[in-house]
Amino acid sequence: MKKCIAEFLGTLVLVLFGCGVAVFSGVDLTATALAFGLAIVAMAYTIGPVSGCHVNPAVSLAMAINKRISWLEFAFYAAAQILGAIAGAALLYAIVKSTGANPAQTGLGQNGYGANIDLCGAIIAEVVLTFVFVLTIVAVTSPKSGSGKKAGIVIGLTLTLIHLLGIRLTGTSVNPARSLGPALLLMGNAIAQVWVFIAAPLVGGALAAIFGKFVLGTED
Amino acid sequence: MKKCIAEFLGTLVLVLFGCGVAVFSGVDLTATALAFGLAIVAMAYTIGPVSGCHVNPAVSLAMAINKRISWLEFAFYAAAQILGAIAGAALLYAIVKSTGANPAQTGLGQNGYGANIDLCGAIIAEVVLTFVFVLTIVAVTSPKSGSGKKAGIVIGLTLTLIHLLGIRLTGTSVNPARSLGPALLLMGNAIAQVWVFIAAPLVGGALAAIFGKFVLGTED
Amino acid sequence: MKKCIAEFLGTLVLVLFGCGVAVFSGVDLTATALAFGLAIVAMAYTIGPVSGCHVNPAVSLAMAINKRISWLEFAFYAAAQILGAIAGAALLYAIVKSTGANPAQTGLGQNGYGANIDLCGAIIAEVVLTFVFVLTIVAVTSPKSGSGKKAGIVIGLTLTLIHLLGIRLTGTSVNPARSLGPALLLMGNAIAQVWVFIAAPLVGGALAAIFGKFVLGTED
Amino acid sequence: MKKCIAEFLGTLVLVLFGCGVAVFSGVDLTATALAFGLAIVAMAYTIGPVSGCHVNPAVSLAMAINKRISWLEFAFYAAAQILGAIAGAALLYAIVKSTGANPAQTGLGQNGYGANIDLCGAIIAEVVLTFVFVLTIVAVTSPKSGSGKKAGIVIGLTLTLIHLLGIRLTGTSVNPARSLGPALLLMGNAIAQVWVFIAAPLVGGALAAIFGKFVLGTED
Repeated sequence: MKKCIAEFLGTLVLVLFGCGVAVFSGVDLTATALAFGLAIVAMAYTIGPVSGCHVNPAVSLAMAINKRISWLEFAFYAAAQILGAIAGAALLYAIVKSTGANPAQTGLGQNGYGANIDLCGAIIAEVVLTFVFVLTIVAVTSPKSGSGKKAGIVIGLTLTLIHLLGIRLTGTSVNPARSLGPALLLMGNAIAQVWVFIAAPLVGGALAAIFGKFVLGTED
Repeated sequence: MKKCIAEFLGTLVLVLFGCGVAVFSGVDLTATALAFGLAIVAMAYTIGPVSGCHVNPAVSLAMAINKRISWLEFAFYAAAQILGAIAGAALLYAIVKSTGANPAQTGLGQNGYGANIDLCGAIIAEVVLTFVFVLTIVAVTSPKSGSGKKAGIVIGLTLTLIHLLGIRLTGTSVNPARSLGPALLLMGNAIAQVWVFIAAPLVGGALAAIFGKFVLGTED
Repeated sequence: MKKCIAEFLGTLVLVLFGCGVAVFSGVDLTATALAFGLAIVAMAYTIGPVSGCHVNPAVSLAMAINKRISWLEFAFYAAAQILGAIAGAALLYAIVKSTGANPAQTGLGQNGYGANIDLCGAIIAEVVLTFVFVLTIVAVTSPKSGSGKKAGIVIGLTLTLIHLLGIRLTGTSVNPARSLGPALLLMGNAIAQVWVFIAAPLVGGALAAIFGKFVLGTED
Repeated sequence: MKKCIAEFLGTLVLVLFGCGVAVFSGVDLTATALAFGLAIVAMAYTIGPVSGCHVNPAVSLAMAINKRISWLEFAFYAAAQILGAIAGAALLYAIVKSTGANPAQTGLGQNGYGANIDLCGAIIAEVVLTFVFVLTIVAVTSPKSGSGKKAGIVIGLTLTLIHLLGIRLTGTSVNPARSLGPALLLMGNAIAQVWVFIAAPLVGGALAAIFGKFVLGTED
């Protein structure tokens, strides 16, 4: 139960700060990428000791595939993450309103394709970006060859890296919950395209789990 | 006594550098957010061994609620922090003058609402921002599950995160002393609104202390 | 074999993210420099435990000169790195295409001289930049006086430093594989000038190995 | 002797990269501040194990006052640092030339007053900035309460902080060698004003040594 509250809170913070900085900075590249990454740094050392700070169904899927959590835990984690992302997007919606702006015009940091990149490119980008992100996570948190307390900083900086490239392409999902939250608040185009940002990160995360296990030996 | 000098110096540095970069960079988002965060990194490893480097009454309140310091210590800490913030703002005032600018026009990095966000939004934003900031602090400095020497870097990066979102809203207080210093030097609108930036951070910090203790188990 | 796969993947990630951010950010200085550096941070903790994460023939050359790897290993490492860089550049090429842009016009983050700096300056710059970069690497990974798990973060931040200066000069190679990948995809001017970005980094890396061994005592 | 070579190299790198990024980025605030800070990070883990990586006469003065080095060592350190800074500025001069620009017009990242800040303000700013910088150094490298291997990263990030504020004021010296190098290459106004950037940092560093010893107990 505490793990679910922790994952709920962590995903809320990730969406509120990451998507929030995207909205209020006018998608400033360095500021937005730092916000997503530093949200992970903050939460890794806050909820990490409780739940492991996945805050991302693609990460939890990789952990379930590599048997670090059970499939039942995966279901609870994913549900808590999705609810947290919706709550984060709703809180961001309220804050945007209180600045006098219209969330339908500013957006909520939602992901998309078509404007900057075609569908095929979006799928490839999200699979590759998630693969690199989740592979770093399974390696740096490896029971045997991982880096212990340093992991939170490394994973956060890696998410900043992922966003530095991905923001100009799809806005960077690599996280089905993070995409679902703003899309459910905005509906329209965002919800129509959200399947890409659910499916591609899950594929990338699953591939990373398998590659980590069999090539890098992260589960030995 | 040494603890009071340490907290005085630390809060002076936080206000001088954080608010100073806001003034001289024209509130450049990344530069200002980095300045507030790196001021905490620098001071955490400088005065941290002496006083714990709270430099923020909302942090000291959380520590008092969770019995890590006594209420008498809280009173001394808060007084030293407020005096340090006033000294930092005064030093910044003198430096702005020496550049030939008028502090009444450039401001001193004071917080406010009305221009970018309405009162209700400002209160919500400051409570939420402080909650996330102080929760990270009580978790990462937890006697049991904390991260030891890494805490200073994590807390500093978290304050950078908080500012990346909050600068465009209220200018980011999350710290009653940091708001009081510039407001007392500038008076006018800044002092008239400062109650929000005293009350909301204290509420957010108190909630974080309670959430940390009972949900994350930071005091076990 | 696993070491070759690791070096292939690491160099792919370095080129895809570093050169990719250069392309899509319009060579934003801070964002591009952070991307190259954080790609090293991510890979150091992912493939580092397998292969040491050289992802750069100039680094592998220094390690071979100082007998940390054999010359046979050097050959395999360099081959894997070059193939990885080509794959990274090819993937970036495909992504640029999927955004509707023309890689021949946007470039692929290739290195060059003539536009910003003359040939002689480019050679000096690349030798000096690589010397500083590789010297930091041989020192921070020194068996005796190195910094253990912190090395990946230090090396990544050093590559960010190198790029902050070098981007405005040659685009920053300091890595023959990283230059060869985009040049082979683009041909033309990039491939005609690539000898500089193969030779100068190797010279800088070799000098760093010797200086580290005999002056700093990194191999004692 | 090796210590002198190390300090020479470290100060060369600090001036080449810090002042170099100032020149080529058009004094971009975040990029320049990061360059100075990351030069310290890189050198701390490269020459740190040999000489301690002072690369700054104000730091060496503080170390001599607190008896961590002898006054004879101080003289050798300061001489090596000044020669290194001159070499770094000369190398930067050559690189600027090779880009087709005129160092007399671009400058070499020299410090100054009059344009942005008056003489009195410059002196106050440099004393305060150096005090904060050197106090962090003596605390984080304290034999008793210091932070060991983490010190290099903390000191580097603190120098970034110092530059975020100081660049818009004096260009940020806090280091007599760093100011002397470019001034000797440029002469004119830079050399006429350089006494401020020798005297004020030395005063700030000495005050920090005394404050650290008697208030923070860094030498216990």
